[in-house]
Amino acid sequence: MQTLVIDKEIKYTGEQLSPHWIYKNFNIMGNAIVAFIGECEVNLNHMVDIEDVINNEPIYSRKMLNIIEENFDSSLVETVFKQRLLVTITKELIEKNNPKVNIIRSGDDLYINGKKLSVSIATKSITSTLIHFGLNIISEGAAVKAADLTNDAHITDIKKFATELLQTYNNEVQDIRLAASKVRGVI
Amino acid sequence: MQTLVIDKEIKYTGEQLSPHWIYKNFNIMGNAIVAFIGECEVNLNHMVDIEDVINNEPIYSRKMLNIIEENFDSSLVETVFKQRLLVTITKELIEKNNPKVNIIRSGDDLYINGKKLSVSIATKSITSTLIHFGLNIISEGAAVKAADLTNDAHITDIKKFATELLQTYNNEVQDIRLAASKVRGVI
Amino acid sequence: MQTLVIDKEIKYTGEQLSPHWIYKNFNIMGNAIVAFIGECEVNLNHMVDIEDVINNEPIYSRKMLNIIEENFDSSLVETVFKQRLLVTITKELIEKNNPKVNIIRSGDDLYINGKKLSVSIATKSITSTLIHFGLNIISEGAAVKAADLTNDAHITDIKKFATELLQTYNNEVQDIRLAASKVRGVI
Amino acid sequence: MQTLVIDKEIKYTGEQLSPHWIYKNFNIMGNAIVAFIGECEVNLNHMVDIEDVINNEPIYSRKMLNIIEENFDSSLVETVFKQRLLVTITKELIEKNNPKVNIIRSGDDLYINGKKLSVSIATKSITSTLIHFGLNIISEGAAVKAADLTNDAHITDIKKFATELLQTYNNEVQDIRLAASKVRGVI
Amino acid sequence: MQTLVIDKEIKYTGEQLSPHWIYKNFNIMGNAIVAFIGECEVNLNHMVDIEDVINNEPIYSRKMLNIIEENFDSSLVETVFKQRLLVTITKELIEKNNPKVNIIRSGDDLYINGKKLSVSIATKSITSTLIHFGLNIISEGAAVKAADLTNDAHITDIKKFATELLQTYNNEVQDIRLAASKVRGVI
Amino acid sequence: MQTLVIDKEIKYTGEQLSPHWIYKNFNIMGNAIVAFIGECEVNLNHMVDIEDVINNEPIYSRKMLNIIEENFDSSLVETVFKQRLLVTITKELIEKNNPKVNIIRSGDDLYINGKKLSVSIATKSITSTLIHFGLNIISEGAAVKAADLTNDAHITDIKKFATELLQTYNNEVQDIRLAASKVRGVI
Repeated sequence: MQTLVIDKEIKYTGEQLSPHWIYKNFNIMGNAIVAFIGECEVNLNHMVDIEDVINNEPIYSRKMLNIIEENFDSSLVETVFKQRLLVTITKELIEKNNPKVNIIRSGDDLYINGKKLSVSIATKSITSTLIHFGLNIISEGAAVKAADLTNDAHITDIKKFATELLQTYNNEVQDIRLAASKVRGVI
Repeated sequence: MQTLVIDKEIKYTGEQLSPHWIYKNFNIMGNAIVAFIGECEVNLNHMVDIEDVINNEPIYSRKMLNIIEENFDSSLVETVFKQRLLVTITKELIEKNNPKVNIIRSGDDLYINGKKLSVSIATKSITSTLIHFGLNIISEGAAVKAADLTNDAHITDIKKFATELLQTYNNEVQDIRLAASKVRGVI
Repeated sequence: MQTLVIDKEIKYTGEQLSPHWIYKNFNIMGNAIVAFIGECEVNLNHMVDIEDVINNEPIYSRKMLNIIEENFDSSLVETVFKQRLLVTITKELIEKNNPKVNIIRSGDDLYINGKKLSVSIATKSITSTLIHFGLNIISEGAAVKAADLTNDAHITDIKKFATELLQTYNNEVQDIRLAASKVRGVI
Repeated sequence: MQTLVIDKEIKYTGEQLSPHWIYKNFNIMGNAIVAFIGECEVNLNHMVDIEDVINNEPIYSRKMLNIIEENFDSSLVETVFKQRLLVTITKELIEKNNPKVNIIRSGDDLYINGKKLSVSIATKSITSTLIHFGLNIISEGAAVKAADLTNDAHITDIKKFATELLQTYNNEVQDIRLAASKVRGVI
Repeated sequence: MQTLVIDKEIKYTGEQLSPHWIYKNFNIMGNAIVAFIGECEVNLNHMVDIEDVINNEPIYSRKMLNIIEENFDSSLVETVFKQRLLVTITKELIEKNNPKVNIIRSGDDLYINGKKLSVSIATKSITSTLIHFGLNIISEGAAVKAADLTNDAHITDIKKFATELLQTYNNEVQDIRLAASKVRGVI
Repeated sequence: MQTLVIDKEIKYTGEQLSPHWIYKNFNIMGNAIVAFIGECEVNLNHMVDIEDVINNEPIYSRKMLNIIEENFDSSLVETVFKQRLLVTITKELIEKNNPKVNIIRSGDDLYINGKKLSVSIATKSITSTLIHFGLNIISEGAAVKAADLTNDAHITDIKKFATELLQTYNNEVQDIRLAASKVRGVI
């Protein structure tokens, strides 16, 4: 899997969660995960989470660290497991940067001091699976009382944080594939 | 997936990590995860981790909380992702019981204050995949300087802890399957 | 798999055979099978069976028991096997209610006294597989000489019949998954 | 899938349910289903059904029509669905030969007048899946009160019956694969 | 897999590379491969190769031997392996007809004397995978200096060549499936 | 996939075609392909090709270039496709070194001037798939009249040839995975 932290700001509208968006825009072919900073505004007709559509919950954040992953060799269930790992590693990295933070993972959501820090979804196209994971950088203006990386996690250098996150995640995904190749089958 | 915390002590020798051990011994058919307390001693010819065999690292623990899972509908790679989730939830549950604990996850290992708390492996049989996850309850006598649930995580009621762990894990695995069923495919 | 017999009448037009129709309308997430009574009229542009499109055979029935199933963990071939099982169990349930009935299964079709009782199709979306199975309740007005549950199978309480059908089918599908988990692999 | 009704009698001991038994003995490579007549005696250490082993239920029949299938392209769950189809077609063929027979299917078992006619199991090897399906031809001497093809189903020509059964089953399996190739995906 | 060499000329525009095109037009259900002669002109909005779209490389050939395959039981990666085999067999058949030809395969491309002979792509629909493989019959007018079957490979009877190609390919694909069914698993 | 041309001679007896042989002996974890030179003598009880066992055809070659591949993410059918690609690339590399050679591929066999150059098999373990591909370096003493790399293909530096072969094959396998990630799905 290739990783890239994108320099320019990009507004996340949900349209980025589509097949080959990474390849078409950043010329990275194959499994890839990219991060970018930008406003996040997903209206209902671009939402893939039908639960949110039913509950009429559009997504808004003034400034978010957005992560998009596209895989060409995972099932959707495996991709949801990957999503949970990505969320877990984010929590662990925030704890490493700030050991006293009170951060809780609940499924694919992160909370700091009971306020929601993140949004996430995993879905499937005809040829691939995709993950979006968004972390508030500035939480003012969010629909519900929210936490953010700046004020609640005390992350000062977002791009450095993103770089370490993508690298740590990529290393563990590789390690997981190797872990499946080093064991004797049992009878 | 059915869950069971077994009352009687069982010594873990590696032979328990074999197909239908749960079904044959506890009459639970299908996907299941069980926990039991017991000494842990796996000699080289029962080890499934070839890396440990190459490195000549047998496993010993005087008293361990052992967890065995058998799945009949997951690939080995997906099972390693499940293993990482089980380890993650264990860390989170220890943090919940004891917010000031210094616990770190590294792949499928847990460390408290830099001392190793756990061992784990995932493997495959002809019809299933299997996980073993062992957590020291008393760490004296371990090969390397080790942490344990009693002294380092301050867990006093191991069976209660095991019950909550299996239940939380089972809930999240169910939630992951549902998460894969509530999203619109993208084109 | 959850089951539901829907109280209100719904006209089946083919648009119901689409991903998340059950979830969006009845708030059932995950694998599910539902039954409802209603007129059935599928014009060519909503048909998924290309054979029927080629043969220019639209589907009409004045009153039908319609069954829709959506799975998120089966291949299309496995779903066709499930469809054949659903048709088989329907035949067996009609025989149980009425031992002297002359009912024949031919693939995914049922015939009573040589007249066609049912229509069925299985297909795939990006994230799921789907089955439609329709049984005439009143056959007058059908394109070809048809049998129906009321006059030919002598089923008086359609909803009770539907409830037992969905339950029996769900039990056997669960039993099949268990059957795959209780056997020793062979070498 | 190739089909063969074997002329010579073969005692079924459970050892026939192993990979490439058909290929090694009858030189049929690839997916195949064969039928043969013979005594059936499976002792506990050759049984693959762990449920039977736990319940200590060895299998005996003085004279059985035995069917063995080996597939190289199906999962174990799909193979259990195939097994249920094979059992269903057997019931339907007995009904066709003898419309007044009182025959009931319960999972992978057939009963005539409440007496058990058949035994069956599906399992997996490293490279294939396998089915055994045995129908009593003469039921005297069976462990439980049993039905048989001769006296209860009134099948007089067992080989002719077997030939039609294998052919009908093979045709429907082919038809099922085609059914999965003639439908438009839905969005 | 069924094979067909179509008599009438058909212009290849990219629209033929869609699910059930073979079934709808030639009434062949299931896995199939067909060949036809015709002009080839694929503009950017019908191209499935995003690399070509990014590079703005529409495809044109005055007269091409076009081959379309649709599979209902292969993954996309396996289908790319099948594509490479189809290209390989084409090279071998040209060598057989003309042993002194200087023909080179590079991935899914063929070159004669350094000039490009062919275009190819493999893709996926919701229910199937598809291959297009086009060989220039007359190369004048092609965008880049091209080779063709007539002048460079000295194939005089294109339909005979196509018939032998489809047959040889079909035989090897069948042989590959058999090869996977004749080996003992290893432990 | 990692590649390695091993310096020391190793006799190939068939026991090398077993899971983790590469990992245990050369400390390469995960997908890998290695080459080594050595005598080849496989007696019947180490053969995995049941066809050869049935035909009583043990394998012998005085000096062979042996290639062993182990994959942890391919089905057996996909592995046979990989085997055919490996054989194809070997042929192409021999042609590149020696354009006038008369070399023919027939399935997984290579022939020079009608004499057999190679042996090959692909099989499966519980956790992986494996390929053996052996090319005669010196053909005297072979059971049937054989070709060899030295006298018939005029390859003088076997290790250089092996290095280029493994590298070219590895590149194309990577390219195939990428090819499956650069195409738009079709509807």
